[in-house]
Amino acid sequence: MKSFSQLLIGVFLAFGIAVSAHAQAPFKKAEDAIKYRQSALFVMAQHFGRIGPVVKGERPYNKDEVAKNAAVAEQMSKLPWDGFVAGTDKGDTDAKPEIWSDAAKFKSAAEKMQQEMSKLADAANGGDLNAIKAQFGATGKACKACHDDFRKKK
Amino acid sequence: MKSFSQLLIGVFLAFGIAVSAHAQAPFKKAEDAIKYRQSALFVMAQHFGRIGPVVKGERPYNKDEVAKNAAVAEQMSKLPWDGFVAGTDKGDTDAKPEIWSDAAKFKSAAEKMQQEMSKLADAANGGDLNAIKAQFGATGKACKACHDDFRKKK
Repeated sequence: MKSFSQLLIGVFLAFGIAVSAHAQAPFKKAEDAIKYRQSALFVMAQHFGRIGPVVKGERPYNKDEVAKNAAVAEQMSKLPWDGFVAGTDKGDTDAKPEIWSDAAKFKSAAEKMQQEMSKLADAANGGDLNAIKAQFGATGKACKACHDDFRKKK
Repeated sequence: MKSFSQLLIGVFLAFGIAVSAHAQAPFKKAEDAIKYRQSALFVMAQHFGRIGPVVKGERPYNKDEVAKNAAVAEQMSKLPWDGFVAGTDKGDTDAKPEIWSDAAKFKSAAEKMQQEMSKLADAANGGDLNAIKAQFGATGKACKACHDDFRKKK
Protein backbone atom coordinates (compact mmCIF):
# COMPACT_ATOMS: atom_id res chain seq x y z
CA MET A 1 0.00 0.00 0.00
CA LYS A 2 1.31 3.43 -0.90
CA SER A 3 2.20 5.86 1.83
CA PHE A 4 0.45 9.21 1.98
CA SER A 5 3.60 11.01 0.79
CA GLN A 6 3.93 8.65 -2.18
CA LEU A 7 0.33 9.34 -3.08
CA LEU A 8 1.00 13.04 -2.80
CA ILE A 9 3.98 12.75 -5.12
CA GLY A 10 1.79 10.88 -7.59
CA VAL A 11 -0.80 13.64 -7.49
CA PHE A 12 1.86 16.29 -8.02
CA LEU A 13 3.40 14.39 -10.92
CA ALA A 14 0.01 13.97 -12.60
CA PHE A 15 -0.64 17.66 -12.04
CA GLY A 16 2.79 18.55 -13.39
CA ILE A 17 2.13 16.66 -16.62
CA ALA A 18 -1.23 18.38 -17.02
CA VAL A 19 0.43 21.75 -16.49
CA SER A 20 3.16 21.13 -19.03
CA ALA A 21 0.74 19.88 -21.69
CA HIS A 22 -2.00 22.47 -21.39
CA ALA A 23 -1.99 25.20 -18.83
CA GLN A 24 0.74 27.60 -19.91
CA ALA A 25 -1.54 30.59 -19.34
CA PRO A 26 -1.08 33.37 -20.25
CA PHE A 27 0.83 31.67 -23.09
CA LYS A 28 -0.67 29.67 -25.95
CA LYS A 29 2.34 27.37 -26.29
CA ALA A 30 5.29 26.34 -24.13
CA GLU A 31 7.69 27.80 -26.70
CA ASP A 32 5.94 31.18 -26.43
CA ALA A 33 6.62 31.22 -22.69
CA ILE A 34 10.30 30.38 -23.32
CA LYS A 35 10.62 32.98 -26.08
CA TYR A 36 8.85 35.57 -23.92
CA ARG A 37 11.20 35.27 -20.94
CA GLN A 38 14.26 35.13 -23.22
CA SER A 39 13.06 38.22 -25.12
CA ALA A 40 12.40 40.23 -21.97
CA LEU A 41 15.79 39.27 -20.51
CA PHE A 42 17.56 40.05 -23.80
CA VAL A 43 16.04 43.53 -24.04
CA MET A 44 16.91 44.11 -20.36
CA ALA A 45 20.49 42.94 -20.87
CA GLN A 46 20.92 45.20 -23.90
CA HIS A 47 19.90 48.31 -21.96
CA PHE A 48 21.81 47.30 -18.83
CA GLY A 49 24.84 46.53 -21.01
CA ARG A 50 24.82 49.98 -22.61
CA ILE A 51 25.69 51.45 -19.22
CA GLY A 52 28.83 49.27 -19.04
CA PRO A 53 31.09 51.37 -21.30
CA VAL A 54 30.10 54.52 -19.36
CA VAL A 55 30.96 52.86 -16.05
CA LYS A 56 34.29 51.68 -17.50
CA GLY A 57 35.09 55.18 -18.77
CA GLU A 58 35.04 54.07 -22.41
CA ARG A 59 32.11 56.32 -23.23
CA PRO A 60 31.38 59.83 -21.92
CA TYR A 61 28.79 60.00 -19.16
CA ASN A 62 25.45 61.40 -20.30
CA LYS A 63 22.94 61.51 -17.45
CA ASP A 64 19.78 61.28 -19.60
CA GLU A 65 21.11 58.40 -21.66
CA VAL A 66 22.12 56.35 -18.61
CA ALA A 67 18.84 57.16 -16.82
CA LYS A 68 16.82 56.07 -19.84
CA ASN A 69 18.71 52.80 -20.22
CA ALA A 70 18.41 52.06 -16.50
CA ALA A 71 14.67 52.85 -16.58
CA VAL A 72 14.03 50.46 -19.47
CA ALA A 73 16.17 47.77 -17.79
CA GLU A 74 14.15 48.23 -14.59
CA GLN A 75 10.82 47.91 -16.45
CA MET A 76 12.05 44.82 -18.29
CA SER A 77 13.29 43.20 -15.05
CA LYS A 78 9.66 42.82 -13.93
CA LEU A 79 8.50 40.84 -16.95
CA PRO A 80 10.34 37.54 -17.47
CA TRP A 81 8.99 35.64 -14.44
CA ASP A 82 5.54 34.81 -15.83
CA GLY A 83 7.38 32.98 -18.59
CA PHE A 84 8.83 30.37 -16.24
CA VAL A 85 5.72 28.21 -16.55
CA ALA A 86 5.92 24.69 -15.10
CA GLY A 87 7.04 22.21 -17.75
CA THR A 88 9.04 24.73 -19.81
CA ASP A 89 12.46 23.38 -18.86
CA LYS A 90 12.45 21.43 -22.15
CA GLY A 91 13.10 22.78 -25.64
CA ASP A 92 15.18 25.78 -26.70
CA THR A 93 16.07 26.92 -23.20
CA ASP A 94 19.03 27.06 -20.82
CA ALA A 95 16.71 27.04 -17.81
CA LYS A 96 17.84 24.53 -15.17
CA PRO A 97 15.24 22.28 -13.52
CA GLU A 98 16.18 23.90 -10.18
CA ILE A 99 14.01 26.87 -11.23
CA TRP A 100 11.02 24.68 -10.47
CA SER A 101 12.49 22.20 -7.96
CA ASP A 102 13.88 25.03 -5.80
CA ALA A 103 11.21 27.59 -6.62
CA ALA A 104 11.58 29.57 -3.39
CA LYS A 105 15.31 30.16 -4.02
CA PHE A 106 14.62 31.12 -7.65
CA LYS A 107 11.91 33.57 -6.58
CA SER A 108 14.28 35.11 -4.08
CA ALA A 109 17.05 35.47 -6.70
CA ALA A 110 14.57 36.98 -9.16
CA GLU A 111 13.36 39.48 -6.58
CA LYS A 112 16.93 40.38 -5.64
CA MET A 113 17.72 41.15 -9.28
CA GLN A 114 14.63 43.35 -9.61
CA GLN A 115 15.56 45.24 -6.44
CA GLU A 116 19.11 45.82 -7.64
CA MET A 117 17.83 46.96 -11.05
CA SER A 118 15.50 49.45 -9.31
CA LYS A 119 18.41 50.73 -7.25
CA LEU A 120 20.37 51.26 -10.47
CA ALA A 121 17.47 53.25 -11.93
CA ASP A 122 17.42 55.37 -8.76
CA ALA A 123 21.19 55.94 -8.91
CA ALA A 124 20.95 56.82 -12.61
CA ASN A 125 18.25 59.39 -11.85
CA GLY A 126 20.42 60.78 -9.05
CA GLY A 127 23.20 61.51 -11.52
CA ASP A 128 26.19 60.67 -9.31
CA LEU A 129 28.51 58.65 -11.54
CA ASN A 130 30.33 57.05 -8.61
CA ALA A 131 27.03 55.84 -7.16
CA ILE A 132 26.05 54.52 -10.60
CA LYS A 133 29.36 52.65 -10.88
CA ALA A 134 28.92 51.01 -7.47
CA GLN A 135 25.32 50.05 -8.15
CA PHE A 136 26.10 48.79 -11.67
CA GLY A 137 28.49 46.30 -10.05
CA ALA A 138 25.93 45.25 -7.43
CA THR A 139 23.24 44.75 -10.08
CA GLY A 140 25.60 42.73 -12.26
CA LYS A 141 26.34 40.48 -9.27
CA ALA A 142 22.61 39.79 -8.85
CA CYS A 143 22.34 38.85 -12.56
CA LYS A 144 25.35 36.55 -12.25
CA ALA A 145 24.17 34.89 -9.03
CA CYS A 146 20.92 33.84 -10.69
CA HIS A 147 22.71 32.63 -13.84
CA ASP A 148 25.19 30.61 -11.77
CA ASP A 149 22.42 28.74 -9.97
CA PHE A 150 19.63 28.58 -12.53
CA ARG A 151 21.05 28.80 -16.05
CA LYS A 152 22.86 25.98 -17.82
CA LYS A 153 26.47 26.67 -18.71
CA LYS A 154 26.78 27.55 -22.40
CA MET B 1 33.69 59.80 -66.65
CA LYS B 2 31.25 59.16 -63.86
CA SER B 3 28.39 61.56 -63.31
CA PHE B 4 28.04 63.29 -59.96
CA SER B 5 25.02 61.11 -59.07
CA GLN B 6 26.97 57.94 -59.90
CA LEU B 7 29.77 59.14 -57.65
CA LEU B 8 27.25 59.86 -54.93
CA ILE B 9 25.81 56.35 -55.23
CA GLY B 10 29.34 54.96 -54.95
CA VAL B 11 29.92 56.96 -51.78
CA PHE B 12 26.65 55.77 -50.30
CA LEU B 13 27.38 52.16 -51.19
CA ALA B 14 30.80 52.36 -49.57
CA PHE B 15 29.25 53.99 -46.53
CA GLY B 16 26.53 51.34 -46.45
CA ILE B 17 29.10 48.58 -46.34
CA ALA B 18 30.96 50.33 -43.55
CA VAL B 19 27.72 50.72 -41.62
CA SER B 20 26.77 47.08 -41.95
CA ALA B 21 30.21 45.86 -40.93
CA HIS B 22 30.90 48.13 -37.97
CA ALA B 23 28.62 50.91 -36.88
CA GLN B 24 25.56 49.19 -35.40
CA ALA B 25 25.59 51.41 -32.32
CA PRO B 26 24.17 50.94 -29.79
CA PHE B 27 24.55 47.25 -30.74
CA LYS B 28 27.76 45.26 -30.75
CA LYS B 29 26.69 43.03 -33.64
CA ALA B 30 24.12 43.18 -36.43
CA GLU B 31 22.42 40.06 -35.04
CA ASP B 32 21.99 41.77 -31.66
CA ALA B 33 20.09 44.59 -33.37
CA ILE B 34 17.87 42.05 -35.15
CA LYS B 35 17.28 40.03 -31.97
CA TYR B 36 16.58 43.22 -30.01
CA ARG B 37 13.83 44.49 -32.30
CA GLN B 38 12.32 41.00 -32.61
CA SER B 39 12.38 40.56 -28.82
CA ALA B 40 10.74 43.91 -28.13
CA LEU B 41 8.06 43.26 -30.75
CA PHE B 42 7.45 39.74 -29.43
CA VAL B 43 6.97 40.93 -25.84
CA MET B 44 4.69 43.71 -27.13
CA ALA B 45 2.64 41.26 -29.20
CA GLN B 46 2.24 38.89 -26.24
CA HIS B 47 0.78 41.62 -24.03
CA PHE B 48 -1.34 43.12 -26.81
CA GLY B 49 -2.54 39.61 -27.70
CA ARG B 50 -3.68 38.89 -24.13
CA ILE B 51 -6.33 41.58 -24.56
CA GLY B 52 -7.76 39.75 -27.61
CA PRO B 53 -9.77 37.08 -25.73
CA VAL B 54 -11.28 39.80 -23.49
CA VAL B 55 -12.31 41.85 -26.52
CA LYS B 56 -13.81 38.74 -28.14
CA GLY B 57 -15.75 37.90 -24.97
CA GLU B 58 -13.81 34.64 -24.45
CA ARG B 59 -12.37 35.84 -21.15
CA PRO B 60 -14.04 37.96 -18.46
CA TYR B 61 -13.08 41.63 -18.47
CA ASN B 62 -10.78 42.60 -15.62
CA LYS B 63 -9.87 46.29 -15.75
CA ASP B 64 -6.51 46.03 -13.96
CA GLU B 65 -5.36 43.08 -16.06
CA VAL B 66 -6.20 44.78 -19.36
CA ALA B 67 -4.71 48.09 -18.21
CA LYS B 68 -1.47 46.36 -17.20
CA ASN B 69 -1.16 44.50 -20.50
CA ALA B 70 -1.90 47.66 -22.48
CA ALA B 71 0.66 49.63 -20.44
CA VAL B 72 3.41 47.07 -21.08
CA ALA B 73 2.48 46.92 -24.79
CA GLU B 74 2.69 50.73 -24.94
CA GLN B 75 6.12 50.76 -23.27
CA MET B 76 7.37 48.04 -25.59
CA SER B 77 6.06 49.85 -28.69
CA LYS B 78 8.69 52.56 -28.15
CA LEU B 79 11.69 50.24 -28.21
CA PRO B 80 12.11 48.27 -31.46
CA TRP B 81 13.02 51.15 -33.76
CA ASP B 82 16.65 51.58 -32.67
CA GLY B 83 17.14 47.99 -33.78
CA PHE B 84 16.48 48.78 -37.44
CA VAL B 85 20.12 49.68 -38.01
CA ALA B 86 21.22 50.17 -41.62
CA GLY B 87 22.56 46.93 -43.07
CA THR B 88 20.46 44.63 -40.85
CA ASP B 89 18.11 43.47 -43.61
CA LYS B 90 20.28 40.35 -43.94
CA GLY B 91 20.33 37.33 -41.65
CA ASP B 92 17.58 35.90 -39.47
CA THR B 93 15.03 38.61 -40.21
CA ASP B 94 11.78 39.15 -42.10
CA ALA B 95 12.52 42.86 -42.47
CA LYS B 96 11.96 44.07 -46.04
CA PRO B 97 14.55 46.36 -47.66
CA GLU B 98 11.78 48.99 -47.96
CA ILE B 99 12.35 49.76 -44.25
CA TRP B 100 15.54 51.51 -45.32
CA SER B 101 14.74 52.45 -48.93
CA ASP B 102 11.44 54.07 -47.91
CA ALA B 103 12.53 55.19 -44.45
CA ALA B 104 10.07 58.08 -44.19
CA LYS B 105 7.09 55.79 -44.81
CA PHE B 106 8.43 53.23 -42.31
CA LYS B 107 8.94 55.96 -39.68
CA SER B 108 5.40 57.15 -40.23
CA ALA B 109 4.00 53.60 -39.89
CA ALA B 110 6.07 53.03 -36.73
CA GLU B 111 4.82 56.29 -35.22
CA LYS B 112 1.24 55.46 -36.12
CA MET B 113 1.52 52.11 -34.31
CA GLN B 114 2.95 53.79 -31.21
CA GLN B 115 0.13 56.35 -31.21
CA GLU B 116 -2.51 53.65 -31.52
CA MET B 117 -0.85 51.61 -28.75
CA SER B 118 -0.89 54.71 -26.50
CA LYS B 119 -4.58 55.23 -27.28
CA LEU B 120 -5.21 51.61 -26.27
CA ALA B 121 -3.42 52.20 -22.95
CA ASP B 122 -5.60 55.29 -22.41
CA ALA B 123 -8.79 53.37 -23.23
CA ALA B 124 -7.69 50.53 -20.93
CA ASN B 125 -7.16 53.00 -18.10
CA GLY B 126 -10.56 54.51 -18.84
CA GLY B 127 -12.22 51.17 -18.21
CA ASP B 128 -14.95 51.37 -20.88
CA LEU B 129 -14.95 47.94 -22.54
CA ASN B 130 -16.62 49.20 -25.72
CA ALA B 131 -13.94 51.88 -26.12
CA ILE B 132 -11.27 49.23 -25.51
CA LYS B 133 -12.82 46.97 -28.17
CA ALA B 134 -12.88 49.77 -30.76
CA GLN B 135 -9.31 50.84 -30.00
CA PHE B 136 -8.02 47.26 -29.94
CA GLY B 137 -9.22 46.97 -33.55
CA ALA B 138 -7.63 50.28 -34.56
CA THR B 139 -4.32 49.32 -32.95
CA GLY B 140 -4.37 45.92 -34.64
CA LYS B 141 -4.87 47.65 -37.99
CA ALA B 142 -1.77 49.76 -37.39
CA CYS B 143 0.25 46.60 -36.62
CA LYS B 144 -1.04 44.92 -39.77
CA ALA B 145 -0.46 47.94 -42.03
CA CYS B 146 3.23 47.98 -41.07
CA HIS B 147 3.57 44.20 -41.49
CA ASP B 148 1.89 44.33 -44.93
CA ASP B 149 4.36 46.92 -46.21
CA PHE B 150 7.54 46.12 -44.33
CA ARG B 151 7.60 42.48 -43.26
CA LYS B 152 8.24 39.57 -45.61
CA LYS B 153 5.41 37.10 -45.98
CA LYS B 154 6.08 34.00 -43.89
